[in-house]
Amino acid sequence: MGLDERLVSLEDILAAAAGMHTAVVRTPLLRAAWAGVTGGLWLKAENLQPIGSFKIRGAYTAVARLDPRERAGGLVTHSSGNHAQAVAWSARAFGVPAVIVMPDGTPSVKVDAVRGLGAEIVMVPPSERLATAASLQAERGLCLIPPFDHADVIAGQGTVGLEIAQVLPDVGTVLVPTSGGGLLSGVAAALHALAPQARVVGVEPEFAADLAEGFARGERVEWDAALTTRTIADGLRVSGVGQLPWMHICEYVHDVVTVSEEQILAAMAAAAMHSRLVLEPSGAAALAAALAGASDPEQRPTVAVLTGGCVETALLARVLAAGAPVAAAPY
Amino acid sequence: MGLDERLVSLEDILAAAAGMHTAVVRTPLLRAAWAGVTGGLWLKAENLQPIGSFKIRGAYTAVARLDPRERAGGLVTHSSGNHAQAVAWSARAFGVPAVIVMPDGTPSVKVDAVRGLGAEIVMVPPSERLATAASLQAERGLCLIPPFDHADVIAGQGTVGLEIAQVLPDVGTVLVPTSGGGLLSGVAAALHALAPQARVVGVEPEFAADLAEGFARGERVEWDAALTTRTIADGLRVSGVGQLPWMHICEYVHDVVTVSEEQILAAMAAAAMHSRLVLEPSGAAALAAALAGASDPEQRPTVAVLTGGCVETALLARVLAAGAPVAAAPY
Repeated sequence: MGLDERLVSLEDILAAAAGMHTAVVRTPLLRAAWAGVTGGLWLKAENLQPIGSFKIRGAYTAVARLDPRERAGGLVTHSSGNHAQAVAWSARAFGVPAVIVMPDGTPSVKVDAVRGLGAEIVMVPPSERLATAASLQAERGLCLIPPFDHADVIAGQGTVGLEIAQVLPDVGTVLVPTSGGGLLSGVAAALHALAPQARVVGVEPEFAADLAEGFARGERVEWDAALTTRTIADGLRVSGVGQLPWMHICEYVHDVVTVSEEQILAAMAAAAMHSRLVLEPSGAAALAAALAGASDPEQRPTVAVLTGGCVETALLARVLAAGAPVAAAPY
Repeated sequence: MGLDERLVSLEDILAAAAGMHTAVVRTPLLRAAWAGVTGGLWLKAENLQPIGSFKIRGAYTAVARLDPRERAGGLVTHSSGNHAQAVAWSARAFGVPAVIVMPDGTPSVKVDAVRGLGAEIVMVPPSERLATAASLQAERGLCLIPPFDHADVIAGQGTVGLEIAQVLPDVGTVLVPTSGGGLLSGVAAALHALAPQARVVGVEPEFAADLAEGFARGERVEWDAALTTRTIADGLRVSGVGQLPWMHICEYVHDVVTVSEEQILAAMAAAAMHSRLVLEPSGAAALAAALAGASDPEQRPTVAVLTGGCVETALLARVLAAGAPVAAAPY
C-alpha cells in the first residue's frame, strides 16, 4: 500500500477498542451550539474518563497487550502528569504493581493521586527521570510503558478517532491538542481510514509550538524545555513529538495551529459555563482553537477533543472568577 | 392491575424516549469511584443536556405531543429557571413561538438565556405569574406547558429512569432531587417496571423539605415560599409537589431524605474536582445525599441523578475557592 508498515493500522485501533471492554468510558460527543461555529462544533469529552484524561486509552491498551507473565512482574514509567495516573490505574486494573518515576517538584496533588491508585513513587531530579526508569526496568524486570512513542499507545489513543467517526461520520475538521503526538497520530490514523474527508489538525500553545514549526519546515524539531514550560498547559510541554508519532503526522495530519495562553483560559471558562465541563488548560486547547476560528473551512462539522480535566481547584476558581470572556450565542 | 390509570406507564415512557430522537442527549452514567461508596456510585450527568438540565426531556415530550395545529399557535409557561429554557428550546426545535412569564427580579443571566433562545419574555410580580400565564393562554390561544404536574412531562422525565435501568439493570438505589416531583415520579415509574429491586429515593434540601414531611405523614403538604427560598438550591424551592406527582410518589417511591446547604456546596466542589462536572446547587443534591451515606443499604450500586449545571460563574468560583471539603479516595 506504500505506507510504512510501522504505522498503526485501522485493525490495530479496532483491536484496541475491543480490548478495552468497559474499562474505558465511551465518552459523549456533545454539541456546543453556544459557540456559534458554522457547521456545528462538537466536543469529545475525554475529561470524563475515570482518571480525567484520554491517557487511560493508550496506557490500558499497552498494558493489556503485554505478555501476562512479564506484566505480572510490574510496570514502570516516568511522568508527572496524566500518563502517570493512567499507568497506575491500568496496573491496578490488571492487579500488578507499578512504579512511577516523578520529577522533584511535582505538585503534591498529583503525587497523592498516583499514590492513591496504589503505585510506588520514586522522586528524582528532573534530569534523571529517563535514566531512573530505565535502570528500574533493568534491575527489577519491570515493563516500561512509554507515554506516546509506542505503537500500542498510539493504537489506544486512536480509539478516540474511531468513536468520532462512528458518531459523526461526516465530520469535516478534528482539532487535537498535541504534545508527544500519540493522540494526534492515533486519531489521524483512524480518521484517515474511516472518514477520509476529515481534516485532522494538531493544536499547540504558542509557547510550545515545536510541532507547528516542524510541520511547516517538514522536519521534526525540538524546543528547549525552558521554552515549552512557559505555557500554563502543563500537559503540552513535551519538547518534541516522538519518532513514531512524527511518521504518522507526516502521513495523516493536515495542519498544526497554535493558541495563546489567553485563548486557552477563555476556553476553560467557556467549557465550564456553557457546556458544564471542567477542563485543565491542556484539555481546553482544541476548543480554544475552534473558538479562535480554526473550525471547518468548508462549514462541515468540527470536533474539538477535550483531552483532560485534571486541574487544580485554585486555578479553576481563578479562571472562573476572571469571567468567561467568550461571547456565546446561547445554545 | 389495581393501579390508578392516571399514573404514567412504562409504555408512555418508552414512547417519550422514541419521540426524542436526537434532540435529547442520552447522558452518560459515570462511575464515581472517588466517592468510596460501597457497591459503587454512578452519576447520571443530566447537566450535559443542551440547556444544561433534564427539564428538556419533559418539555420536549409535552411539546411533541401537542396537536400540530394548536402547537403552531405558540407555547406559554411560567418559570424563572430551567423549565423556561426547556420550553424556549423546544419551541425553537419545533419552529413555533414561545412566551415565558418570569417573575420580577429573575437574574439577568437567566432572562438573557431564554431571550437568546428566541422566546418572548413577560416580566410580572411573582404573585401574578400563574394568572398572567393563564390569561396569555386564553387571549392568545397559546398552549400551556406545565413544569411538572402533567402526564406528558412526567413521561419525558421518566426517560432518565429508563436509561438508568438499561445501563445498570441491577441498580440498588436511585437518588433523585425533588421539587415539583415530575422527575422523581417518572424515574420511579420507569424503575418500578424495569428494575423493581431498586429503591427510589427523593432528595430535598433541609430548607425545602415539604415532601420529606409529607411523605412521613402520608399526606401531601406545602411549605410557605418564605421557607423554601432559604435554600441556595434555586431549582428545588417549589412549595409542594404536584397532585399527579404525589400519586406516583405514594405508589412508587421508597423514601425521601434531606441534605444541608453545606453538603450541597461540598458536593458541587467534589463533582467539579473529581468527576469534572459543573453542577448547580440543585443538581448536586443527590450526590450530596450519596456522600452523606444515603447509598444502597444492601451495598448494591447507587445512582445519583445530577439534574443540572446552570450555575452562575461567581457562585461556582466561590465554591471552588472554598475548597472541596469532601475527603475522596482517588478513583
